[in-house]
Amino acid sequence: MKDLSVLVLVGSLLVEVGNAQLDYNSAPPNLSTLTDTSLAETWRPRAHVLPPYGSIGDPCMIYTDPETGLFHAAWGVSNGASGATTDDLVTYYDLNPNGAPFIVSGGLNDPIAVFDGSVIPSGINGYPTLLYTAVSYLPIQWTINYTRGSETQALAVSTDGGKNFTKLAQGPAIPAPPFALNVTGFRDPYVFQNAQLDTLLNSTDGTWYVIISGGVHGDGPSQFLYRQYDPEFQYWEELGQWWHEAANSTWGNGTFAGRWGFNFEVGNIFSLDHEGYNNEGSIFTTLGAEWSLDPIVPQVSDFREMLWATGDVSLSESGDVKFTPDMAGKLDTGASAYAAAGKLLPSTSQASTKSGAPDRFISYVWLTGNFYGTQAFPTAQNWTGALLLPRELSIGTIDNVVDNELVQETGSWRVAGNGSSADTVQLETLKQVIAREPLAALVAGNTSTEPGYASSSPGSVAFQKSPGSKFYVMTANITFPQSARNSDLKAGFQILASEFESTTIYYQFSNESIIVDRSNTSAAAQTSAGIDSRNEAGRLRLFDIMQDGEEAIETLQLTIVVDNGILEIHANERFALGTWVRSWYASSTEIRFFQEGSGNVTYSDITISEGLFDAWPERSS
Amino acid sequence: MKDLSVLVLVGSLLVEVGNAQLDYNSAPPNLSTLTDTSLAETWRPRAHVLPPYGSIGDPCMIYTDPETGLFHAAWGVSNGASGATTDDLVTYYDLNPNGAPFIVSGGLNDPIAVFDGSVIPSGINGYPTLLYTAVSYLPIQWTINYTRGSETQALAVSTDGGKNFTKLAQGPAIPAPPFALNVTGFRDPYVFQNAQLDTLLNSTDGTWYVIISGGVHGDGPSQFLYRQYDPEFQYWEELGQWWHEAANSTWGNGTFAGRWGFNFEVGNIFSLDHEGYNNEGSIFTTLGAEWSLDPIVPQVSDFREMLWATGDVSLSESGDVKFTPDMAGKLDTGASAYAAAGKLLPSTSQASTKSGAPDRFISYVWLTGNFYGTQAFPTAQNWTGALLLPRELSIGTIDNVVDNELVQETGSWRVAGNGSSADTVQLETLKQVIAREPLAALVAGNTSTEPGYASSSPGSVAFQKSPGSKFYVMTANITFPQSARNSDLKAGFQILASEFESTTIYYQFSNESIIVDRSNTSAAAQTSAGIDSRNEAGRLRLFDIMQDGEEAIETLQLTIVVDNGILEIHANERFALGTWVRSWYASSTEIRFFQEGSGNVTYSDITISEGLFDAWPERSS
Repeated sequence: MKDLSVLVLVGSLLVEVGNAQLDYNSAPPNLSTLTDTSLAETWRPRAHVLPPYGSIGDPCMIYTDPETGLFHAAWGVSNGASGATTDDLVTYYDLNPNGAPFIVSGGLNDPIAVFDGSVIPSGINGYPTLLYTAVSYLPIQWTINYTRGSETQALAVSTDGGKNFTKLAQGPAIPAPPFALNVTGFRDPYVFQNAQLDTLLNSTDGTWYVIISGGVHGDGPSQFLYRQYDPEFQYWEELGQWWHEAANSTWGNGTFAGRWGFNFEVGNIFSLDHEGYNNEGSIFTTLGAEWSLDPIVPQVSDFREMLWATGDVSLSESGDVKFTPDMAGKLDTGASAYAAAGKLLPSTSQASTKSGAPDRFISYVWLTGNFYGTQAFPTAQNWTGALLLPRELSIGTIDNVVDNELVQETGSWRVAGNGSSADTVQLETLKQVIAREPLAALVAGNTSTEPGYASSSPGSVAFQKSPGSKFYVMTANITFPQSARNSDLKAGFQILASEFESTTIYYQFSNESIIVDRSNTSAAAQTSAGIDSRNEAGRLRLFDIMQDGEEAIETLQLTIVVDNGILEIHANERFALGTWVRSWYASSTEIRFFQEGSGNVTYSDITISEGLFDAWPERSS
Repeated sequence: MKDLSVLVLVGSLLVEVGNAQLDYNSAPPNLSTLTDTSLAETWRPRAHVLPPYGSIGDPCMIYTDPETGLFHAAWGVSNGASGATTDDLVTYYDLNPNGAPFIVSGGLNDPIAVFDGSVIPSGINGYPTLLYTAVSYLPIQWTINYTRGSETQALAVSTDGGKNFTKLAQGPAIPAPPFALNVTGFRDPYVFQNAQLDTLLNSTDGTWYVIISGGVHGDGPSQFLYRQYDPEFQYWEELGQWWHEAANSTWGNGTFAGRWGFNFEVGNIFSLDHEGYNNEGSIFTTLGAEWSLDPIVPQVSDFREMLWATGDVSLSESGDVKFTPDMAGKLDTGASAYAAAGKLLPSTSQASTKSGAPDRFISYVWLTGNFYGTQAFPTAQNWTGALLLPRELSIGTIDNVVDNELVQETGSWRVAGNGSSADTVQLETLKQVIAREPLAALVAGNTSTEPGYASSSPGSVAFQKSPGSKFYVMTANITFPQSARNSDLKAGFQILASEFESTTIYYQFSNESIIVDRSNTSAAAQTSAGIDSRNEAGRLRLFDIMQDGEEAIETLQLTIVVDNGILEIHANERFALGTWVRSWYASSTEIRFFQEGSGNVTYSDITISEGLFDAWPERSS
């Protein structure tokens, strides 16, 4: 996703932060009228990745430098891309002072913009080599005619540890989409290696591949596959649309993965096993899908879905390699969460050596700060958007699942085999959790335990001990009786609550969803434009599990991160929802048990760790 | 050919011409020291195509506007291309004031330069549509590594009668050479229609094709063939290297067509019959070939050959269309004559309607004024280079040729069948003559006849009546006895002669060549740099012809155009040599019969028409 606001140059570096005039103990003024940077710290997160100032775009161009073992996180900025290194996925160090970019647009190939790219860690002459989308014409969107040549894929190389990527003084490596194809998009080249493809295509072991995301007008979204052709990564052999879906079609009935839409973006390809990354594992993709309701309005994409899929890779009768999903879901269900990008983090990296982790695929999800550039968020914040906490992806299992109609629906899971107990099955799905190092750091804060609680009627009850700040992580389990299935029961928590504000997070059985009710989240939404107060919702099926010979609804296992304005909800190692919660009042830190509808709800194993961590120890605050 | 000097912007328009200080009755000063424009008229031609000032590059982008019937002649200039219209091939009218260009470089596709292109007269939306080489990187030459993306083929459209060609706001139509090919060049797209290709390739009648000239490093020169894919001329289907020759190979032993060299340039494709252009006729190509002697010096191409070829077009076993020459020769043998370009001039054009000519292929040859930018010609001339007079091309025949070893050699002819008399054959070759309208205008000057002359010993004898100026056309026949074959005989004329200077044009039997001895052409060559005094030479075989039952050497039929500094020698409707003859003295206008070596030579049918014509009646002089 290209946030249009990213293309507006930040004209000056605003570092003077003063909020003396803002009183978080009384109702906010119209924040849109502020002309200083007094909102800079109001909702700024501590533990998340974001630039020192300005807008953040898509995460991309992420890699581990084989010379240093440092992991390079990176993201689009107004005129190019910036990044930071980390040796633990917890603390980050800007590659350049003030987050200055390591590549900027304005060259012969990219006069207009640098879009997403990806890095071959040991590429041209052994140096980190970036293949990125060089932009010559705007606008580009699947809703309008595609300007030929607007997106090409170009090369750049870093010989200074990633501080600068120098563009090759030549035309693009991949100068055009497949011949005469009227594409909806052709961008975000993602480089990867894959043993399964090597075998299938008789490639040399360790061959690099590229997928480019896009689609075809009138036909539907696609991933275009290419194969490395020469040792200098100059040429990439066209292998066709290895994945194509009919325009605006869905996975199953669309419930669990939404629509494939009209255009794919930001596709990543990687292979996983139950431990993490495995070059010989199952091939997964994360991707963005774009679509709109009828009638389609030019230059407006109503919806963007942050999806994942895995499936079969095989040769078609005509000898083309084809990817066919066998399960698909949402990597993040937040409406502002999109454009995820990640990379293999090898066990030999500094971070993994310290934590003892195996090879992992680490993915960052982008959280747009102004809803893809469509909201006039107060400029006094002086920054827009962030990346959600890095996640480890692997193949997850759900054991002892009763083999009923809940299982048989086409969803974000697949039956892997028999369960451990009779008449059950084992399901597989994408396991996604906050990466172990930042998760350990999050829960290492000031930790308190809230006693368990049983609720059987509607209402909200305050915690015995709520946090004193808006920086904490809470874990909790919620257990429901079998009777809750298909009932009107809603249960969860109110957070960031006070007499003026509250954000309600609950599981709702009627549509098997986790809801974030933001209608009362922020008093500022009443006074200021651009403070989104719409509900968030994400589908999570709680299966029937055979426990001790009895069927029970799976326990809802929540990890809720509140990092000032950012809320991340992780559930059952397979659900994530990132969003903005911009409470105003200093007093809005209370947590409450919450129930609506009828039924018995049991809350247990509740811990709160306050403080989080400072992801940017070297930045001046 | 891209004259490097073309890329130097003419900084200012210099129209003030004064040559008061120059005395053409005494020895010239060092002309290189002149800082004004006093040489502007010294050698400027009257009847030739050239811009008002500045350098002229390759002819290209020539077409007949179907709306007006006007023929558009055009050529490269420093920053783009300029042109003029003509309704008779005699007089020309600049498309824009002061010869301002109709397209200039500096766009997204062509930030560095606009190279040659060609025009579909009824292209996009029915408008004249230019496909041209858009340049992003320099230098480009077959002697150095090719920078990927340096040459792409882009589209521009004129909606104002050719005064401006507006580039499409998109990337190039042909964005790259065939995949992973390390080309030596990839430029000068030439659009054409051809019935034979339509049939062979099952194309719709009237489909447009493109050849792009170039070659492959380490492999040899090529023409790349493409076919129109859509009605809007957006996409061109790649049909491979329809013509490829081994690097540095020759046609036959190289005598009559020289080397194919290492890289092709400026290829034109058209089809001819004995009358002129015929869409169903034999396929011909004109092309430039570049090569050097060993060792090849980077950025130096020692030789450029202006060639033509015709031959067979067929499908290979793998279904690829292939062009295989069956005769080839030089379109012009002048060392400065290169980069010819032409186009169909239909019988419905204004010019042909008036002259009653059938469909013709009209070709202009470029005459570089500073030997491809390598000579420091005096800047006081304020113009550099010109186009040679337009030529009509067709299939020519030579009848009653004795079928001896002269015929059997691989050369610029082919045996078409039996001759009209016994034991003879009819040969075919490329017939090339000055187009009928300018030829008629040339000979319509002040005409005088010189009596025939017989010479039998070495020496030079002045004409009874020489021209009074350096603007004339002379026609003459020279007949040789059979004994001249393989003798040391040289015979011809001295022109532009005086006590100080003379240029000798002669046929030399020892190597069957027409020679232009320029060693005494210009007194200025003694005082000034950049006045080329090297000999010119061009191979012309005079066959043995059966005449009235006797074998005789073919008569040498000369048409010699002297247009001030430009000399054109046309012979036997199949030979041409264009060059510069920069005589200094006003008195250097004498013509002399010339002979060296032994033998009897008969000169006959000598006419001289003085005055020529002013090709540019509307330009201020």
